[in-house]
Amino acid sequence: MRKEAIWFHNSCGPPENCFRTSQIISQPIIAHGGIAGPQKIHHTPVFLMGENNVSAAESAAVSAWLSKFEAALSKSDAKAAAALFADECYWRDLVSFTWNIITLEGRPAIEAMLRETLAKVKPSNWKIEGEATAADGVAEGWFTFETGVSRGRGIVRLKDGKCWTLLTTMVELKGHEERKGPKRIMGAEHGVAKNRKNWLQLKQEEEARLGVSEQPYCLIIGGGQGGIALGARLKRLGVPTIIVEKNERAGDSWRKRYKSLCLHDPVWYDHLPYIDFPKNWPVFSPKDKIGDWLEMYTKVMELNYWSSTEAKSASYDDKKKEWTVVVRRDGKDITLKPKQLVLATGQSGKANLPKFKGMESFKGDQHHSSKHPGPDAYAGKKAVIIGSNNSAHDIAAALWEAGADVTMVQRSSTHISRSDTLMEIGLGSLYSEQALQNGVTTAKADLIFASLPYKILHEFQIPAYAEMKKRDAAFYKGLEKAGFMLDWGDDESGLFMKYLRRGSGYYIDVGASQLIIDGSIKLKSGVDVEEIKQHSVLLSDGSELPADLIVYATGYGSMNGWAADLISRETADKVGKCWGLGSNTTKDPGPWEGELRNMWKPTQQEALWFHGGNLHQSRHYSQFLSLQLKARHAGLPTPVYGLQTVHHKG
Amino acid sequence: MRKEAIWFHNSCGPPENCFRTSQIISQPIIAHGGIAGPQKIHHTPVFLMGENNVSAAESAAVSAWLSKFEAALSKSDAKAAAALFADECYWRDLVSFTWNIITLEGRPAIEAMLRETLAKVKPSNWKIEGEATAADGVAEGWFTFETGVSRGRGIVRLKDGKCWTLLTTMVELKGHEERKGPKRIMGAEHGVAKNRKNWLQLKQEEEARLGVSEQPYCLIIGGGQGGIALGARLKRLGVPTIIVEKNERAGDSWRKRYKSLCLHDPVWYDHLPYIDFPKNWPVFSPKDKIGDWLEMYTKVMELNYWSSTEAKSASYDDKKKEWTVVVRRDGKDITLKPKQLVLATGQSGKANLPKFKGMESFKGDQHHSSKHPGPDAYAGKKAVIIGSNNSAHDIAAALWEAGADVTMVQRSSTHISRSDTLMEIGLGSLYSEQALQNGVTTAKADLIFASLPYKILHEFQIPAYAEMKKRDAAFYKGLEKAGFMLDWGDDESGLFMKYLRRGSGYYIDVGASQLIIDGSIKLKSGVDVEEIKQHSVLLSDGSELPADLIVYATGYGSMNGWAADLISRETADKVGKCWGLGSNTTKDPGPWEGELRNMWKPTQQEALWFHGGNLHQSRHYSQFLSLQLKARHAGLPTPVYGLQTVHHKG
Repeated sequence: MRKEAIWFHNSCGPPENCFRTSQIISQPIIAHGGIAGPQKIHHTPVFLMGENNVSAAESAAVSAWLSKFEAALSKSDAKAAAALFADECYWRDLVSFTWNIITLEGRPAIEAMLRETLAKVKPSNWKIEGEATAADGVAEGWFTFETGVSRGRGIVRLKDGKCWTLLTTMVELKGHEERKGPKRIMGAEHGVAKNRKNWLQLKQEEEARLGVSEQPYCLIIGGGQGGIALGARLKRLGVPTIIVEKNERAGDSWRKRYKSLCLHDPVWYDHLPYIDFPKNWPVFSPKDKIGDWLEMYTKVMELNYWSSTEAKSASYDDKKKEWTVVVRRDGKDITLKPKQLVLATGQSGKANLPKFKGMESFKGDQHHSSKHPGPDAYAGKKAVIIGSNNSAHDIAAALWEAGADVTMVQRSSTHISRSDTLMEIGLGSLYSEQALQNGVTTAKADLIFASLPYKILHEFQIPAYAEMKKRDAAFYKGLEKAGFMLDWGDDESGLFMKYLRRGSGYYIDVGASQLIIDGSIKLKSGVDVEEIKQHSVLLSDGSELPADLIVYATGYGSMNGWAADLISRETADKVGKCWGLGSNTTKDPGPWEGELRNMWKPTQQEALWFHGGNLHQSRHYSQFLSLQLKARHAGLPTPVYGLQTVHHKG
Repeated sequence: MRKEAIWFHNSCGPPENCFRTSQIISQPIIAHGGIAGPQKIHHTPVFLMGENNVSAAESAAVSAWLSKFEAALSKSDAKAAAALFADECYWRDLVSFTWNIITLEGRPAIEAMLRETLAKVKPSNWKIEGEATAADGVAEGWFTFETGVSRGRGIVRLKDGKCWTLLTTMVELKGHEERKGPKRIMGAEHGVAKNRKNWLQLKQEEEARLGVSEQPYCLIIGGGQGGIALGARLKRLGVPTIIVEKNERAGDSWRKRYKSLCLHDPVWYDHLPYIDFPKNWPVFSPKDKIGDWLEMYTKVMELNYWSSTEAKSASYDDKKKEWTVVVRRDGKDITLKPKQLVLATGQSGKANLPKFKGMESFKGDQHHSSKHPGPDAYAGKKAVIIGSNNSAHDIAAALWEAGADVTMVQRSSTHISRSDTLMEIGLGSLYSEQALQNGVTTAKADLIFASLPYKILHEFQIPAYAEMKKRDAAFYKGLEKAGFMLDWGDDESGLFMKYLRRGSGYYIDVGASQLIIDGSIKLKSGVDVEEIKQHSVLLSDGSELPADLIVYATGYGSMNGWAADLISRETADKVGKCWGLGSNTTKDPGPWEGELRNMWKPTQQEALWFHGGNLHQSRHYSQFLSLQLKARHAGLPTPVYGLQTVHHKG
């Protein structure tokens, strides 16, 4: 295995001050973090692959720390356990200790959590996994552990023998392990039995029974990648589940998007659970191809997938602990009674259609970007795109390619990362061929990624984007010259933090920016829409854009809007805003939450769950949501520690 | 990695004489070979995984041998190269040297091949891959090499510094490598272009064009696992190909078989190229499940798959070097003009329907096993099964389970292996979870398996079956007591050799045998069918079996029967019998061929190819057939060495 050090810089000032910058840039980098200011140069490897950084001494240190930690835990000595952490410390727990997704920040928070959970969790059997790695004073080790009811895996990082970051994740519930590998089912039942049914009969019977004579334990609303990935895990865990999807076929949520759409994330980041994309899969999947894959996956994973089915209403009976959900399937209303309800309708699912004066009078075509049919009908036509994020750019470029006259109306600033640069600097060390060659499989990458606390994640991002800014300086200069309003996030932390904080505000450039730079796509920047007229868009600067087509690339609302539509406004308000970290940056108001609001974890509404995000998140977090659901299905106690309080309604 | 030695015994006499037998039996075994007779005990590891048997000395020996071999080859000194082989020696070449699939047996054959091929092949760059392993005087090493036009991989085994077995295989053609891993396509074309088409449009255009305005280079008749696996490889190699399949959907060739059918081979043996079954896939796939997988695979691999299409006729134009093939698609005749024609209609595809006196007068249902609809209509009915191999047993058991009164008519002896025993002793070391844990991936296992010369393969099989006979002695005694005629192959080499030699004559027991032992399935053994009457089957011993249903589980004919139907009897005779080794055993007449007749390699009919076999063979040999076709498509010279002569017409 090649050795490969992945550095981030905690406190080395801007990267140009850093003696390792040139080295960093010649290597795939996950993150290059720095806090501005004249501090001492200090480099920390996030993870180190290969033999050179494997250290017997550090392995011993990690093992020793795990021993001391286990000793304190087994004596239920929360104080002693917390004392093993450094002054700056983070413990992120994915379900194992807290039946929640939570990051505890600082010793007091850790101690408080342990006081409440230890007696119930009964953690034990902490063992280092493989060799620890070390560089610049940080030792990093993988480990396994158990609780009374589960097996887990984690990553610990030590500074001077004390824990700086700890990740604990639940892998499986004892007695409810998935049947795979050596434990897979036989398929053919050897031996004979009168009136035996074959696989197809049993499958057809289950399909006919579930939702009719037998109620699903879990109902998932929304059959995109989120619902499908979660449904696959629940299937393997034996939780009777139905997925309802309004489209005709699995994958249509992709197929029906605009023609030129491809995934903006690369293939290594996008695998579904259980079946990886093959080695010849393109880096960036075209939308119809990913649609076909999802459809195939739904079929071979034997999901109970109700397509052409729309959820109409849902209400929860607190006494019966049961939902009543009415769905319309093939034109007929069916009432389902699941115990658990998951909204997987898409983190970017509920379209924000703006209300502009005069919209109803417009004589041409107008639609939200999510309804844009593609450019083919608009050759030679005048198109106005309201918005300047991903969809706006992709649609504008496709319209230009098809021969339309395109103007983009940019109302506020946008962050732009060039795809190639982003892949290399932003994802390369975790999700790439290079990463695979270094032994960083997608499963490993997911855990490493999850081990970086949200609280300090932006610190690792800022220098990476500073580097990107430098590398693509000419490109950004061209955009500014064209009048494009650029930003890098409130704290210069770039695209990924914008995604986590607000889920919007950026474009991953795959070509449209050049069209703006050279004027092929016209730009009206720093203006708003005043009025829509019969054949034009009137802007706040008094200018008027003739239009045959208006595309409102105006983004999406919070997922709890779905809860309002389906259940009630009251329930939506009780649950509150979804997504975002509480970073107190644009569109992500404080207070600090520490985790994405309401995602994949218990909410203030019992038995209501939100699942969504990109393919990476659908894959990774479906593991933890499925285990939470399975535990409840199996009747295990699941005392939730630190249930989030609600600070914002939506 | 756990160490694991896989032994076979070359000349240690019967296994009960072997001091390592107990060790062998407690481990997964590929083969336990022995030549009867009082010879000295001599154990040879077929392959050795793990560190314990890794030997620096043996690595040096293998490297030294490769150096000497390369030196002789580079001087075009066929005699010197052949002198590096032992007295008993085998060189199996899969396409690399010979553009053929051939095993050269003995030094003179090797020298003759090299004399003819060396100048054209230009082999070079022989390098050991990983560490060699050693035990009991045999060193085994993996290596890579190149020819003028290709890259290859092989396995060499040395005894006393001389080559005992050599395998050379072609991996890829230079300049025509598959785009995968780091070389995969981007999918999204970054940048913009006027009137660009998206993935779906390009795919739809290709589908509309191929076979209409553009002729396929290759036409595959038959869209079962063979045609699909080959089609997938050709797609990745950029060879325009159409697969025609008479059924409505990919996978129907499995779905339409009898209800209780499951694969008799385990999942590790069954992967298709590019996409492995997931870890939770059952060990033995039910027929409808494997059907769904094949359908999904066909879709996501983007194969040009013409379902509901039947090939009507084919003829070859020697001057134009082109086939004219008429296919009927959706009720319309279409004429195709491919350069290459592959019959992938199934090694067990062409049903042998016997002709018994009076068949036409039978008043009940009668059909070949391949047409059997399943047992559901036959509860309480009297069923007679003619035949005693796999299909006969599976169908008989399913009919019994459904409540039919079942009699099996056994006309000749049958070999029976119990599934569990077979998996453990027959396949365990190469295709199992244990094998995976030992680092033997399916890809590695395929090459190891291919490296055992057919000439001596039975020697490794005989002791394994002797062990099975011993282990399951009570079971076999029960069958004999029930009157069942058992055999172990002409030379006691068991199931797999029967499969290779004749493709018939066995049952892998998954439960039916017990029904025969206990009389639940009635048995008439050692008799033939005299006549079919209106409501009964009259047997040669004068007994008469009342029958509402007769199933003719009478097997399949040679694949060249398909060539006779489609092309002409003359062409079928020119090409001759398919399958079988020329072992001079029952149904496999001599002379010795050294390889399976006509399979995956050039035949006496230019541009006509046969592809078939189980999922393992479809996966593994599609690699070599696709490379032969790609080379021709690319216009590379492909001089065939040792084109087989025809000894039997069919």
